Amino acid sequence: LRAHHLDVETVRANWGEPPDLDEVERLVRRGVKCLAVIHNETSTGMTNPLKEIAKVATEHGAWVLVDAVSSIGGITLPCDAWGIDACFGASQKCLAAPPGIAPITVSKRLLDEVDPATVDGWYVNLFTWNRIRKEWGDWHPQPTTISSNIMYAFHRALQLVHEEGLENRIRRHEIVGRAYREGLAGLGYSFFTKPEYASNTVSSAKPPKGVDAPDLIARLKKDHNIFIAGTLGPMRGQGIRIGHLGTQAAKSYLETMLTALAGYSKKAGVTGAEAAVDRAVQLAAKAG
Amino acid sequence: LRAHHLDVETVRANWGEPPDLDEVERLVRRGVKCLAVIHNETSTGMTNPLKEIAKVATEHGAWVLVDAVSSIGGITLPCDAWGIDACFGASQKCLAAPPGIAPITVSKRLLDEVDPATVDGWYVNLFTWNRIRKEWGDWHPQPTTISSNIMYAFHRALQLVHEEGLENRIRRHEIVGRAYREGLAGLGYSFFTKPEYASNTVSSAKPPKGVDAPDLIARLKKDHNIFIAGTLGPMRGQGIRIGHLGTQAAKSYLETMLTALAGYSKKAGVTGAEAAVDRAVQLAAKAG
Repeated sequence: LRAHHLDVETVRANWGEPPDLDEVERLVRRGVKCLAVIHNETSTGMTNPLKEIAKVATEHGAWVLVDAVSSIGGITLPCDAWGIDACFGASQKCLAAPPGIAPITVSKRLLDEVDPATVDGWYVNLFTWNRIRKEWGDWHPQPTTISSNIMYAFHRALQLVHEEGLENRIRRHEIVGRAYREGLAGLGYSFFTKPEYASNTVSSAKPPKGVDAPDLIARLKKDHNIFIAGTLGPMRGQGIRIGHLGTQAAKSYLETMLTALAGYSKKAGVTGAEAAVDRAVQLAAKAG
Repeated sequence: LRAHHLDVETVRANWGEPPDLDEVERLVRRGVKCLAVIHNETSTGMTNPLKEIAKVATEHGAWVLVDAVSSIGGITLPCDAWGIDACFGASQKCLAAPPGIAPITVSKRLLDEVDPATVDGWYVNLFTWNRIRKEWGDWHPQPTTISSNIMYAFHRALQLVHEEGLENRIRRHEIVGRAYREGLAGLGYSFFTKPEYASNTVSSAKPPKGVDAPDLIARLKKDHNIFIAGTLGPMRGQGIRIGHLGTQAAKSYLETMLTALAGYSKKAGVTGAEAAVDRAVQLAAKAG
């Protein structure tokens, strides 16, 4: 937003906590035009209470813009019902397609209210895409040459979402997310966010005493061929981040991952590691 | 450029003719900062005399920006030697990779002279990419998730260019381009540009009397499973456009294409169609 020379006010929150709703309300009351918010924040592994946050903004007429990169297809997000005016995601997360596509939604209200002349640029400008669709529709409805193979793969991924059913898919992420948290807690891990904000698509957690996070990540790669990420920002070096989204939101992945982690927890003196893995695997089995 | 609110002056030329160099010189003398020019113009099938055009601009200190979408990897374009400050291409034309990547070059001079604060936007902004590369280099050197499969395919395509040799590849396009023009002329076609500006990557041509261009395109598709494009702009409906670039710049494609066209020319009373195809195929054989 700053790159587009807009005035930006930031509602700061502690890492792992949602923004203060009173502060959001104060700003939109004062006339802030648009609230930009991330749905699922992967560095702390938290999901914002988006419905409540969006409500505050829409009640005062502000547009709501949502980064849903790591949530679409994995966490409930009814854009119309929650009053979300624009939302962008990514193909390679919960939708389990190759990277390269950013699906977006835009409300009719936003399209109608924005003056095309105030929008910078050409390529990342929906008005360009709309204009070309109208002008070149019978020949070449996009302003650029679409990456056709990525588009076919994305289409296939959407078919798979449709076959599974969006509700079932979201429930699968819910069950597997809960199983990961149960398992990780049993292996002596702690979290960067409260249980009520825990993300169902990514777990960010601090290892038990005696397990060094960067060392653990390197060992998982070397000994188990498992790639996971470290934590970022102020939590850098303190924790691990495990993605459990799309095809990875499955019992088999969970079992492999937690079994590998259990070895390190046991060495660090955590008791009941096997039992914790078993309990998590039982839970994940409900995901089908 | 207009989408970025820049003042734009246009040097108009007749379709199929290069811009007037005196007019370009007048503008850059008057202080126009940047000359934007297309290298290979596919609607008329012409290649601009880019070396001469760029020279006029660079002699007066103007930046030169080039659209090389349908020329990189197929037509000579030494950016440094010709003083081209920025150039963008496409993966899916002469480089014969899947669509989805726009390779670019930028001169050190341009990067040094441009003030990052004057550049709009975030995604289509090289300063964003440079900054993220520096700040996140050890973890995630791009501001977005790269389309990895497209990148691997592009890398493979570049290896193939390297194996063939860029000079050989350009020569292959030269030979096949010439063979197409010979063949089309022999089949009664005429061109929208003079021979000295004829493109080696795409031929845009007007069928002989008695052959209707849109009808021909539909028949090629239906009867021969050959897809070619029609002409655009003021030449819409008047001609056909045949791409002969990347893997398509080959004797086998040429033979199939011209043999199919020969049938329609013969029906329209053009004599010597078979001989014209043979001559063109002989010529293309030199491309290997």
